[in-house]
Amino acid sequence: MLDRVQSPADIRGMTPEEKRQLAQDVRDFLIETCSVTGGHIGAGLGVVELTIALHAAFDTPRDQLVWDVGHQGYPHKVLTGRRDRMHTLRQEGGISGFLKRTESEYDTFGAGHAATSISAAVGIAAGRDLKGEDFKVAAIIGDGSLGSGLAYEALNNAGANTRDFIVVLNDNEMSIAPNVGAMHKYLTRVQRNPIYNRLRSAIGDWADHATGVFKDAGAIVRRWEESVKAFLTPGVLFEELGFRYFGPIDGHDIEQMIATFRAVAEFKGPRLVHVITTKGKGFPAGDHGEKWHALPPGHDPATGKQLKVSTANPNYTAVFGKALAEIMETQANVVAITAAMPSGTGTGIIAKQHPSRFFDVGIAEGHGVTFAAGMATQGAKPVVVIYSTFLQRAYDNIIHDVAIQSLPVIFAMDRAGLVGEDGETHAGVYDIAYMLAVPHMTVTAPKDGAELVGLLKTAVAHEAGPFAVRYPRDVPPDLVGPAKDVPAVPYGTWEVLRRGERVAILATGTMVGESLKAADALAVEGLQVTVVNCRFLKPYDETTLTALLATHQQLLVVEEGTVVNGFGAYMASVVSSHDPVVRVHALGVPDRIIYAASRARQLAQCGLDAASIAARVRALHESEAIAG
Amino acid sequence: MLDRVQSPADIRGMTPEEKRQLAQDVRDFLIETCSVTGGHIGAGLGVVELTIALHAAFDTPRDQLVWDVGHQGYPHKVLTGRRDRMHTLRQEGGISGFLKRTESEYDTFGAGHAATSISAAVGIAAGRDLKGEDFKVAAIIGDGSLGSGLAYEALNNAGANTRDFIVVLNDNEMSIAPNVGAMHKYLTRVQRNPIYNRLRSAIGDWADHATGVFKDAGAIVRRWEESVKAFLTPGVLFEELGFRYFGPIDGHDIEQMIATFRAVAEFKGPRLVHVITTKGKGFPAGDHGEKWHALPPGHDPATGKQLKVSTANPNYTAVFGKALAEIMETQANVVAITAAMPSGTGTGIIAKQHPSRFFDVGIAEGHGVTFAAGMATQGAKPVVVIYSTFLQRAYDNIIHDVAIQSLPVIFAMDRAGLVGEDGETHAGVYDIAYMLAVPHMTVTAPKDGAELVGLLKTAVAHEAGPFAVRYPRDVPPDLVGPAKDVPAVPYGTWEVLRRGERVAILATGTMVGESLKAADALAVEGLQVTVVNCRFLKPYDETTLTALLATHQQLLVVEEGTVVNGFGAYMASVVSSHDPVVRVHALGVPDRIIYAASRARQLAQCGLDAASIAARVRALHESEAIAG
Repeated sequence: MLDRVQSPADIRGMTPEEKRQLAQDVRDFLIETCSVTGGHIGAGLGVVELTIALHAAFDTPRDQLVWDVGHQGYPHKVLTGRRDRMHTLRQEGGISGFLKRTESEYDTFGAGHAATSISAAVGIAAGRDLKGEDFKVAAIIGDGSLGSGLAYEALNNAGANTRDFIVVLNDNEMSIAPNVGAMHKYLTRVQRNPIYNRLRSAIGDWADHATGVFKDAGAIVRRWEESVKAFLTPGVLFEELGFRYFGPIDGHDIEQMIATFRAVAEFKGPRLVHVITTKGKGFPAGDHGEKWHALPPGHDPATGKQLKVSTANPNYTAVFGKALAEIMETQANVVAITAAMPSGTGTGIIAKQHPSRFFDVGIAEGHGVTFAAGMATQGAKPVVVIYSTFLQRAYDNIIHDVAIQSLPVIFAMDRAGLVGEDGETHAGVYDIAYMLAVPHMTVTAPKDGAELVGLLKTAVAHEAGPFAVRYPRDVPPDLVGPAKDVPAVPYGTWEVLRRGERVAILATGTMVGESLKAADALAVEGLQVTVVNCRFLKPYDETTLTALLATHQQLLVVEEGTVVNGFGAYMASVVSSHDPVVRVHALGVPDRIIYAASRARQLAQCGLDAASIAARVRALHESEAIAG
Repeated sequence: MLDRVQSPADIRGMTPEEKRQLAQDVRDFLIETCSVTGGHIGAGLGVVELTIALHAAFDTPRDQLVWDVGHQGYPHKVLTGRRDRMHTLRQEGGISGFLKRTESEYDTFGAGHAATSISAAVGIAAGRDLKGEDFKVAAIIGDGSLGSGLAYEALNNAGANTRDFIVVLNDNEMSIAPNVGAMHKYLTRVQRNPIYNRLRSAIGDWADHATGVFKDAGAIVRRWEESVKAFLTPGVLFEELGFRYFGPIDGHDIEQMIATFRAVAEFKGPRLVHVITTKGKGFPAGDHGEKWHALPPGHDPATGKQLKVSTANPNYTAVFGKALAEIMETQANVVAITAAMPSGTGTGIIAKQHPSRFFDVGIAEGHGVTFAAGMATQGAKPVVVIYSTFLQRAYDNIIHDVAIQSLPVIFAMDRAGLVGEDGETHAGVYDIAYMLAVPHMTVTAPKDGAELVGLLKTAVAHEAGPFAVRYPRDVPPDLVGPAKDVPAVPYGTWEVLRRGERVAILATGTMVGESLKAADALAVEGLQVTVVNCRFLKPYDETTLTALLATHQQLLVVEEGTVVNGFGAYMASVVSSHDPVVRVHALGVPDRIIYAASRARQLAQCGLDAASIAARVRALHESEAIAG
């Protein structure tokens, strides 16, 4: 059946039975494909029928579908002409793991972060109206994203207007982790009451034909009608926000959805269709928990079991979670805060071991940071664990609620740097730049797992203001022992790891190891280069820097972050003012978008591997020889 | 009566009549004081009775009040021991215009931006519980702030828990501008139905004593009860989010509020008390519109009329609004987006002249930016007009929704730089740093009003990605004619305004004028210094920079933004890599919090006035003489 679908138009002529078969084919194809490529398969499997119904009911690409997050987008990609390239999913030059405008005219708005779809769809609808066109716009958003303030801002703004557009609420009772907010409790309550829909249908018919008193009896009766509607309409919350609510309907019943979407399309104004789906539906393992959110490559499609198990060290995320859990055993005021990602941030262990000091605020990064600031005023020591890319959502909270008040909140910025297959939307390459600019902020990056634990201990002991530590989506080079055996890192210090001459490499985080490798290679050629571990980016180690300036001609600052106004620029500015001779060169992620590829490839593309660093040092030596 | 209040404890012993008199005294005192000092008086006048009731009902400072925004905080300040210093309001070394932890133990959480209070209060309550204490925590938030995603995230998170804390919704039907969202419509509907409260009371009594069928009839009846409650309880929306709702009550009836707060304090879990107030109540002019939000100094307390009228040029905000309105006359795809500040951003004129292309999204900066990105996909050219400090709230939207997709959204960053009396919470000193780091972003700053208009025209013509222009809270040195007579600024170009030798000043925005003045002063002493107007910070003018490097020994980069990783650091990084001789010095806002003072004083404190710039150039010449 899949062979018959070259574009969504081919779906529209299919019989119900053919569409059901198509759903099965798409599901089989996705499981087969993702078993090889890996990927965020859970959300996609849940929306196979929904995707078919949307493309059947709407005239895509003229009508515009705005998928939230993009995790949901795999079936959409398969059905919009990208099936033949799905085996390149999340690979260099291949199909993106998210929606992407440059990839297809069916991808109306790129997404990787949650909860942008309603804002974007309202914007698209406003742009449409400005042009005087009349196509339909529908945002498809998961229930987890509804906990985000951005989704609420969009609902609140749209509900107050008469703009013609549709929100499809894909309610699968979990986003990545089980949902935590009041909105989730509300939706669960709605779902669990099938009586609503039957009664609503019966009384709705009657109400539609009512005459006399019900049309004339004024405010009280009208309010009573609203009350009856509230009783019968589970969507009272959305109705209160100005949306016309439809549902809930079965998100795996294609024909019911098509009929509903077509009927809903006839109305005007903001409308919300509540669709119930099962995340990960059809995956052989049959388990719809957090683990089916994403698959690493290499699964058996028949059993869902992973074929090969990595034997590498625990990754930074795991090292962090374990160490924090251990530190919390002895430090009673330390608390952990995550935004809907207990597993993704390694804090699941803390939820188990220290449940009273673990706070999952849902997809609500801004709230999480201000909440942490509030806790800090009471003597708590909050550790906010959020991916670098998602912490961009809390930038104002970091400045306004934490830094200005100099509150001792710790920011554990996981996935800092390049993130491989997750690509450009999730790149954690801006945090050095945006954090360095914040007064009172300590900014650090460890060279390995043990130093991550040491910096965490330093952070917990630091009372003078906020403290950020960034660490990559990677495996550290070392195996880390118990936190109690790891010493805290002396505040504000660097570490000279190798002493050479003329050129000193100021490396930070992941770049320390690469720089040492580069130095080894250069030593073979007779070039002795200094390598410094700049684990504190701010405050920098002035004593060590001064000593380096006295003994070197050039500094090469290497970081896994944007080269525009990262640590290199900071050092260039400091050095240029203070020393008339030494030149500073910044090597970082170039000022352009870095697309999905393996992390190793991305680093090489950016000149951030040992070979590229060595080449750069050689060039510096040569330029010096010429200049000298 | 005011003399009797040394601390809130003194309120608790007062008779109702005394408290009413106290309210009158506070109001008179505030009007008198703000007539001299200026300030955000509207919100404060609205909450005089509420403030008295809160301090009477709660055991402050043991119980903690968290005031949102801080505009509301003036009566609170008067009643918590700061009356004698209120004449120093918003002045250097004086009382802050916002809440501030370092100012009083009664200021539990600093605030200047809207909607942080619920998050902070939940955090304080969580910190309290961790310590095993039992004081009460109440957040007081205006209805305008409820449109912010942050407030919703906090409600959503808190409503799902049983944490003991109280939200007081101060509903005055407007925030700064009249509210725009669905939440506002909802609250208005609630307010306008007094029948709710009477019926609720009567049937509530009956329901409390009901037996038999109402206790036993199972799910349907219980849901029907909920429905009845929805009919009688205007707060259904909050109840759905997990809050126990009380109200609405009259926010000018002190005794009713005290009784309500005391009763509410006896319950547990998240509670919301809905209080109706009149913003600006008691101000002689009797008008409660946007104009009473804030007063400039120098008003007649008897009439509310301003005593002296400024004769200066229109400020940058006005120049911008007028020019944009003119540009929109000929450019049909240009639209303007503001976040609850049509007047504050000068876009009120656009609301009048181009209502179909004007979008006020409310206090929802993140949504505003993603909404703009959606519009841009339809060929619209959105101009997002948000203060530099508030745009921090949309940083992720800027990166994820605009820049990565390279959509042509224009960011008009008003109040960029130091903001005078609004102080540290509103300082627009981070935008250069956080915008330069974003790929595809053009970053600009005009030297005067005409150049602001020219850059705006350049921005509108720029299709290759987003374009930011920053301008200060100040009056430009020039009078600007019609936009059609102002030429667009050639993309990516600098302007050499004065040619000297050895030292070149690279000035941006407001610093161009100061640098020219400095150069004039230096010329008198025989030092000829080059002055360059770096109106494009990114991309910089490589041709001009190369020429400067060939003819100068030192560059002094001057900007009204943080010196850590601002334009100076960017230039230092660029120059250090490319030129072995020229040294770059960055002069900007130092890396510490700059507190309220007049803008001129703040600039002088930061070394960003002509005299300081001249002194710095002299020092550079001397150091060079020594080095040479």
